[in-house]
Amino acid sequence: MSMKAVLKEMVECVDGGLGVVVIGYDGISIDEYIKEDAPVDLQLLAVEYATVLKEIRKAVDVLNTGKMEEVSINTDVSRVIIRVLNDDLFIVFAIDNSGNYGKGRFILRCRAPRILELLR
Amino acid sequence: MSMKAVLKEMVECVDGGLGVVVIGYDGISIDEYIKEDAPVDLQLLAVEYATVLKEIRKAVDVLNTGKMEEVSINTDVSRVIIRVLNDDLFIVFAIDNSGNYGKGRFILRCRAPRILELLR
Repeated sequence: MSMKAVLKEMVECVDGGLGVVVIGYDGISIDEYIKEDAPVDLQLLAVEYATVLKEIRKAVDVLNTGKMEEVSINTDVSRVIIRVLNDDLFIVFAIDNSGNYGKGRFILRCRAPRILELLR
Repeated sequence: MSMKAVLKEMVECVDGGLGVVVIGYDGISIDEYIKEDAPVDLQLLAVEYATVLKEIRKAVDVLNTGKMEEVSINTDVSRVIIRVLNDDLFIVFAIDNSGNYGKGRFILRCRAPRILELLR
């Protein structure tokens, strides 16, 4: 199964799934699957959140409260779940505000090792 | 019921609840209830996250993806749920990594209006 197929399956199997982007902290996207009718510019969002995630990682390091694993940013429009893959890469999974947030988190956690494997 | 009593009840009713802090974006704490054996310096954490939250709000505004409601930052040690109260204040709820994250989110969402009321 190709990376694109894994990403597509993730988005399709979660109610309200809008898209998923695998991206580096440097803001350079590796791969993505985004639904055509997604109301959010997910590529731009992933790039903006790369900067934010670096700030969060810095704060977590300062606080010495373990290793950052997952960040969620929820607005009244969308829920964005971000899962850290390694020191360079993370995945951004966007879900509609009325979508299945719990399943999104679950699928993202389950698929992360497979995605990391496909990058090797 | 006093603010302190509401905060205590929140922490006590969630499995793995460590503490809760009501704090401004300027890093000044309004009130808090923190368990004595909390393994994390929650006051410092809330202050550090105030800066991070401002960065997230900026990104959300740039992206025009609605109004920021909730942010979660999960490490391998703790889960921190942050709920925006208004343009000045937010609540930080820290839960042990093995604690009940779902109930934490639920309780925080339910109690936020009551806390805001107590601040008036």
